Amino acid sequence: MKPVRVGVLGLGTVGGGTVNVLKRNAEEIARRAGREIVVTRASARDLNRARICDTQGIALTTDPFEIVNDPEIDVVVELIGGYDLAKQLVLTAIANGKHVVTANKALIALHGNEVFAEAGKKGVMVLFEAAVAGGIPIIKAIREGLAGNQIQWLAGIINGTGNFILTEMRDKGRDFADVLAEAQALGYAEADPTFDVEGIDAGHKLTILASIAFGIPLQFDKVFTEGITKITRLDVEYAEALGYRIKNLGIARKTESGIELRVHPTLIPKRRLIANVEGVMNAVLVCGDAVGPTLYYGAGAGAEPTASAVVADLVDVVRAMTSDPENRVPHLAFQADAIADIPVLSADAIRTAYYLRLTAEDKPGVLADVTRILAKYNISIEALIQKEPPQGETSVAIIMLTQQTLEKEMNAAIADIEALTAVSGKVARIRLETLG
Amino acid sequence: MKPVRVGVLGLGTVGGGTVNVLKRNAEEIARRAGREIVVTRASARDLNRARICDTQGIALTTDPFEIVNDPEIDVVVELIGGYDLAKQLVLTAIANGKHVVTANKALIALHGNEVFAEAGKKGVMVLFEAAVAGGIPIIKAIREGLAGNQIQWLAGIINGTGNFILTEMRDKGRDFADVLAEAQALGYAEADPTFDVEGIDAGHKLTILASIAFGIPLQFDKVFTEGITKITRLDVEYAEALGYRIKNLGIARKTESGIELRVHPTLIPKRRLIANVEGVMNAVLVCGDAVGPTLYYGAGAGAEPTASAVVADLVDVVRAMTSDPENRVPHLAFQADAIADIPVLSADAIRTAYYLRLTAEDKPGVLADVTRILAKYNISIEALIQKEPPQGETSVAIIMLTQQTLEKEMNAAIADIEALTAVSGKVARIRLETLG
Repeated sequence: MKPVRVGVLGLGTVGGGTVNVLKRNAEEIARRAGREIVVTRASARDLNRARICDTQGIALTTDPFEIVNDPEIDVVVELIGGYDLAKQLVLTAIANGKHVVTANKALIALHGNEVFAEAGKKGVMVLFEAAVAGGIPIIKAIREGLAGNQIQWLAGIINGTGNFILTEMRDKGRDFADVLAEAQALGYAEADPTFDVEGIDAGHKLTILASIAFGIPLQFDKVFTEGITKITRLDVEYAEALGYRIKNLGIARKTESGIELRVHPTLIPKRRLIANVEGVMNAVLVCGDAVGPTLYYGAGAGAEPTASAVVADLVDVVRAMTSDPENRVPHLAFQADAIADIPVLSADAIRTAYYLRLTAEDKPGVLADVTRILAKYNISIEALIQKEPPQGETSVAIIMLTQQTLEKEMNAAIADIEALTAVSGKVARIRLETLG
Repeated sequence: MKPVRVGVLGLGTVGGGTVNVLKRNAEEIARRAGREIVVTRASARDLNRARICDTQGIALTTDPFEIVNDPEIDVVVELIGGYDLAKQLVLTAIANGKHVVTANKALIALHGNEVFAEAGKKGVMVLFEAAVAGGIPIIKAIREGLAGNQIQWLAGIINGTGNFILTEMRDKGRDFADVLAEAQALGYAEADPTFDVEGIDAGHKLTILASIAFGIPLQFDKVFTEGITKITRLDVEYAEALGYRIKNLGIARKTESGIELRVHPTLIPKRRLIANVEGVMNAVLVCGDAVGPTLYYGAGAGAEPTASAVVADLVDVVRAMTSDPENRVPHLAFQADAIADIPVLSADAIRTAYYLRLTAEDKPGVLADVTRILAKYNISIEALIQKEPPQGETSVAIIMLTQQTLEKEMNAAIADIEALTAVSGKVARIRLETLG
């Protein structure tokens, strides 16, 4: 089948990331989608500006309307942001029968009802996974993955800037204004931080989440928002002492009398997983009547995490473009003829770090023997603890953490260690992963 | 459109849960799917056994082949488990042109390649979201939500029994055998616990996750498994002292030389979110080259969490049954004509708990005045701390946590408290949610 032709509006951070991911992962994406997805046109305000992406093979223009009106373009990806121009472009693309993928939360939260009505009339799709929580597939999880549930409530850390500020205030005992200035210097916060610190950005995202959770129209004007600007170091410390963390949450809850939609700083118990979501990361907790609480965590912003969501939407569009059963999501994610028989490594070839515990006589030279054996197999020791013997006993426990090595080398080293006369019994070995 | 007719094979825990969820949430599900989904037939070994579900309106049989051969059935839900009979039933359903939904991880891990090949020939879908991590939509997340990524590695707590045992060992300093016996008494572990504690169940699930992550055939026989039976209290304590937790992980990683597939107890840094997944809960950490690390958390087993996944698959099948664009996933999750204008509550009507901090003169009677005002508005105090004034100062900080109340009552109470002459400045107020 011929490639799907994509026109990208806006070549900033997310636009550049999208072009990069589509190029770098072209083969992997085609193995999944069953068709190539190619960016053939893109618009940017200034064609001479340095970009994070390679635009070779992409026809550039400063006029985004050329793209939405181009009959050769199958799908328009709107990454300009803002309200008016973006809305005009999206509506024109829809009128021209094109599918649309957008990362524009403000557009969806404020004009989504109108946009979707137009898309419905023309039978095109408008997808917006990237509009909420960046790379986390939270729209798909709620809209499809939890389709059997009555959603009872959801609560999300859906503004990375706000979470970065609150995390820094707690970790380093710093003041709001001080951390905000740093976030601005790091590029995590805008020069005008109102959207982030007053809960407006989170309010846009919450509006979208609440609609897909409860089946209600998009209504940003009804979201209650309170910013994080009045949170003091003192409150952060008192909350901590009481067993709580302060997080900026977007909360949507269905009650008997109606739906609560609110964004505000919130004390939550420290032991909750979501209380431990730090820095610019995002997470959304969704509670359904059948499934109970579920949590989705990942990068909420940034070029490639957001591009990840844009590309997933493009693949969904490609599947919907033909009604052929061949175009369904393949059973094993990749098209049946694209399953690759990459070798699975034998146990010997696994690379991992290790925790080792052994029992040895408490006499000089034992530790030297053990470390000599590890060195022989090129195994580096990361940490070592020797536990003194209990009174009356002569054996000590030696606990070591090693750096990554081949399982094969470790097996040989353990056999050598167990053969030492000063070592009694088996070496306890547990693999260690930093998951970093 | 006429309802989709579902035949359920097996009315045990998951079968009963599926019938219950489909009945209880019938309206919500139809609002999403655009069609009713009705269980018309079900099979069970013993028709006289007490069940967790109401089987009214469902034709029961002891012969599951009657259902897979019934031309009136559109979709077969296989919840019998095991290998041979389940495989025969699924293959017969496919041969008869029926779509299949299954929660059977052993069947997919061992016979999936054959099952999918047959399904491909007949153009039917075989969906298995419930086979891995119960209610967490992890198959959908990897297969669709991260479709733009090259998946680099994934690591999951995908056996609730094993995680329950390790959690209890750590929390209560108990021995493996002791906790296993309790887990068996609670029904978390089978009488023969081999599948859970030796990593076989997790190996089945890892086999499936690795295939959809990397596009490789299902090959359970190549998974390296090591059980948790040899983990001692001592190792749990030493790991903790070194800043690690021991979790039973299924790990799949793509390296330059091939793919690692392994299930074993693993030390992981305590500060990682996944290290804090406790008891019978499941979580899967997936790292893509574009999105970075993402985490999916929820109940990995149980009647209704698993049913949540089965029903989501049924909704996906319904969408694929006709090629009408009307049958696509609706923009706002619910069909456009099923969007309900449920009222959004005003800020006054929000119900939440509160953290309050106020500054007052350090003299008798102030606390009595404050608590009298809260009582007047029916606000109960959950915790109260009074911080002594710094030397030379005469004001104290009073910090209170309240139970849930209406925002309106709290606004009135705060106004009254701020009007007390002994109270200076504004009352700092932060909302509190237990998210439990």
